[in-house]
Amino acid sequence: MPTTEATAPANETIQDLVIGNKILYRQKVVDAFGHLSVRHDKDPARYLMSRYVPPSFVTADDIVTFDLDSNPLDKTGLRYYSERFIHGEIYKLRADVKAIVHCHAPQLIPFAATKVPLRPLYHMSAFLGCRGCGVPVFDIREAAGMTDMLIRTPELGKALAASLEDKPMVLMRGHGATIVGGSVKQVVYRSIYAVENAALQMDAVRLGEPVYLADEEAVKAAESADKVVERPWALWRCEAVGDGDAAQK
Amino acid sequence: MPTTEATAPANETIQDLVIGNKILYRQKVVDAFGHLSVRHDKDPARYLMSRYVPPSFVTADDIVTFDLDSNPLDKTGLRYYSERFIHGEIYKLRADVKAIVHCHAPQLIPFAATKVPLRPLYHMSAFLGCRGCGVPVFDIREAAGMTDMLIRTPELGKALAASLEDKPMVLMRGHGATIVGGSVKQVVYRSIYAVENAALQMDAVRLGEPVYLADEEAVKAAESADKVVERPWALWRCEAVGDGDAAQK
Amino acid sequence: MPTTEATAPANETIQDLVIGNKILYRQKVVDAFGHLSVRHDKDPARYLMSRYVPPSFVTADDIVTFDLDSNPLDKTGLRYYSERFIHGEIYKLRADVKAIVHCHAPQLIPFAATKVPLRPLYHMSAFLGCRGCGVPVFDIREAAGMTDMLIRTPELGKALAASLEDKPMVLMRGHGATIVGGSVKQVVYRSIYAVENAALQMDAVRLGEPVYLADEEAVKAAESADKVVERPWALWRCEAVGDGDAAQK
Amino acid sequence: MPTTEATAPANETIQDLVIGNKILYRQKVVDAFGHLSVRHDKDPARYLMSRYVPPSFVTADDIVTFDLDSNPLDKTGLRYYSERFIHGEIYKLRADVKAIVHCHAPQLIPFAATKVPLRPLYHMSAFLGCRGCGVPVFDIREAAGMTDMLIRTPELGKALAASLEDKPMVLMRGHGATIVGGSVKQVVYRSIYAVENAALQMDAVRLGEPVYLADEEAVKAAESADKVVERPWALWRCEAVGDGDAAQK
Repeated sequence: MPTTEATAPANETIQDLVIGNKILYRQKVVDAFGHLSVRHDKDPARYLMSRYVPPSFVTADDIVTFDLDSNPLDKTGLRYYSERFIHGEIYKLRADVKAIVHCHAPQLIPFAATKVPLRPLYHMSAFLGCRGCGVPVFDIREAAGMTDMLIRTPELGKALAASLEDKPMVLMRGHGATIVGGSVKQVVYRSIYAVENAALQMDAVRLGEPVYLADEEAVKAAESADKVVERPWALWRCEAVGDGDAAQK
Repeated sequence: MPTTEATAPANETIQDLVIGNKILYRQKVVDAFGHLSVRHDKDPARYLMSRYVPPSFVTADDIVTFDLDSNPLDKTGLRYYSERFIHGEIYKLRADVKAIVHCHAPQLIPFAATKVPLRPLYHMSAFLGCRGCGVPVFDIREAAGMTDMLIRTPELGKALAASLEDKPMVLMRGHGATIVGGSVKQVVYRSIYAVENAALQMDAVRLGEPVYLADEEAVKAAESADKVVERPWALWRCEAVGDGDAAQK
Repeated sequence: MPTTEATAPANETIQDLVIGNKILYRQKVVDAFGHLSVRHDKDPARYLMSRYVPPSFVTADDIVTFDLDSNPLDKTGLRYYSERFIHGEIYKLRADVKAIVHCHAPQLIPFAATKVPLRPLYHMSAFLGCRGCGVPVFDIREAAGMTDMLIRTPELGKALAASLEDKPMVLMRGHGATIVGGSVKQVVYRSIYAVENAALQMDAVRLGEPVYLADEEAVKAAESADKVVERPWALWRCEAVGDGDAAQK
Repeated sequence: MPTTEATAPANETIQDLVIGNKILYRQKVVDAFGHLSVRHDKDPARYLMSRYVPPSFVTADDIVTFDLDSNPLDKTGLRYYSERFIHGEIYKLRADVKAIVHCHAPQLIPFAATKVPLRPLYHMSAFLGCRGCGVPVFDIREAAGMTDMLIRTPELGKALAASLEDKPMVLMRGHGATIVGGSVKQVVYRSIYAVENAALQMDAVRLGEPVYLADEEAVKAAESADKVVERPWALWRCEAVGDGDAAQK
């Protein structure tokens, strides 16, 4: 089914998706691997994500429309990310989710492989403490036994989505993490500060028993952070694409 | 009240403030968040700070004059940093303070969240040991219970200022740090080397029991450091704004 | 013996070798030291490697053809890497090996000097777990007593090659590591993610007892990784030589 | 006494000194502080060092000739490094020393403040193990009680020089380190790999009991390293001053 005027996403949706990819690369959340998607702004039963290219290479021409079973609805016959089911299955289960990041950021891997829960050490990453006690860890072994660790099927996507529950992030043992948000800007913010928190939490744990944000502090700080995502976005956009307009925002 | 010729700050004050913002960003003391202020050079009852933009974006046009209650006296009707009370309340309590940095540098967070006191491990950061034993930690919970961690009110600003006592720096649990100085150049120097000391102190603590500067050594080394702030400033200025003149200073 | 049309390597072989050198430098796997070689695509009894220059300086003109005893067959009379026997002796023993990296990446040295085995913590470096339990460590002292640590002779090359057995990598105590692969692109991929794994494994070990990939997971994930080496290569090539074509691949 | 044709240093001496300063900055051995000197190539009773500027700013015009009491013999009346006595007093005591680096590299400070001796973990930094067991630590407190930590007098310079004995490097508690060599290129090589070794030794110590180079291995590896200093110098020079000739060396 071709995309018509009526079903074409807003230019801003595409622009945020393209710039978000370049920001995630510039901020080292992704390298040649990892992906960012956004739910279609006119049709909640679709999502938009790049074809199979490194995030830093993504242009508007690379953006493909997928249904929630992760079938391409346009630009068919190309190579796509084999783990796109992460995105489709989460969009099915979580109506509140409008954008998703999947990454292998090295700072996150140790928290996916040990018993130390990733928890918010400062207000910038308060969302990590929202809705309870730290970030859940998905172990693909429990869902499917011995695999190549990748979310290659709808079933694995469903299992990952279920482990996420109502939280903003899930760690994936031996693999990486998936972060969700209400917009591209929010999920990019969350991804960058989740990685930052992981790095400084490792330092704090080694120094001594750290004091984390209390749940109530985390909820309040996360609400405040949601009101300021435009400010770091303007800087990250400027750093990633040298955008003068952004610099003056 | 409009700013008149008589009450306009010196050009050098504005220039140091703008360049200081860019240096703090280039040296990774601040990211999209954090702020630098300077007390008005002609009126100690006022201070100068940028409107609400990332520090690296700050230009002379963004500088706003505030009274010590942190009300804008010019460029009214803009968005300002919500935590500007950090600055106003410290300027009220500490006549010796001419410039203030607030930041979330990741190297500092672990020392704000654990029982390990930040102490000077070498002469570059000797000021950390001045006037007693290590850097105090402000816990907003003791002042106001469950909050979003931010210094959003004059009352919270007063509580933070009180915890600073007569020291050059205070750590803020779950948040960051505030550093004060007798000039923009001194507070920028202190901020950069406080972050550096935090990084190497973490290494030293993990290696074994480190020997810190003795109080007397710290006082003497800090006095010496105050005489050489122009030298790193020239380099940092050159790195931040590629200023050829600075390079020849 | 001069190289004739018949025995000249394919242009792509030379191009991959030159770009691989620049990628290894850009990704900090090598500094001024370390080297990359490739087995001759037309004659398995020869290999190609740069003359004695830092990897980032390598151009097509610097590529020398060696026999498996590591004697130069062209561009004779130049200075060559003193440790070229690492390459020749491994190519003799391992018909499956088509490309070899030798490096001193700092993240790898601690695993060559302690009892902690380098093991795959995530799918990107799954090959580390292939064919058994972690990466072997070669101690030159056992092979030759007190040396300057370098593989300066065919005998030392043979000893190193033997310690590699059928594995993709061997650590060298007090020295560095040698990584092998079925192509330049695969060995560059393996080198970069071996270094990445070392860095995050150090973090994970310090946090607590990490869960590594199971052998079966490692084998499957390594097979999958071998199918996607072109994607990071395109990015790394673009980062290393700013190649627009690569950027569009 | 003015410098005459007869007593003017060779152009190469000045060029190495200027480029060495820029390399030490580019490689993060020095920041705005730290200095590099070279013994005069025609008069062993003199040494050459920049006037008081950050190392990265140094040009040929900034180079001052000093006698071994660290009095300027030309370009008098300028500001000089207050710690120049480090250089003069070591040149007096150590006829074998032709070049000296003083720095505050953060990776070195923890080894100057703890009981863990800095020792060579790989062949690149083998010189750290030369002539015995690890790098000595100078504690200014034992020489002069409570100070500002700086080597401000000939007496303090003599005490530091004595603590160096016949070794290539001495750590300075609460301050930094001083490295010596037989040429600018050798001392720059030693400084860069001393810092590198400190970083990876910290990792190795935290992983488990590391195996260091045996004394005999260290002596042999250091001799070998001395034969290859031109290779990294060519790369570092290219990185520091973008010198195309160096790139082709």
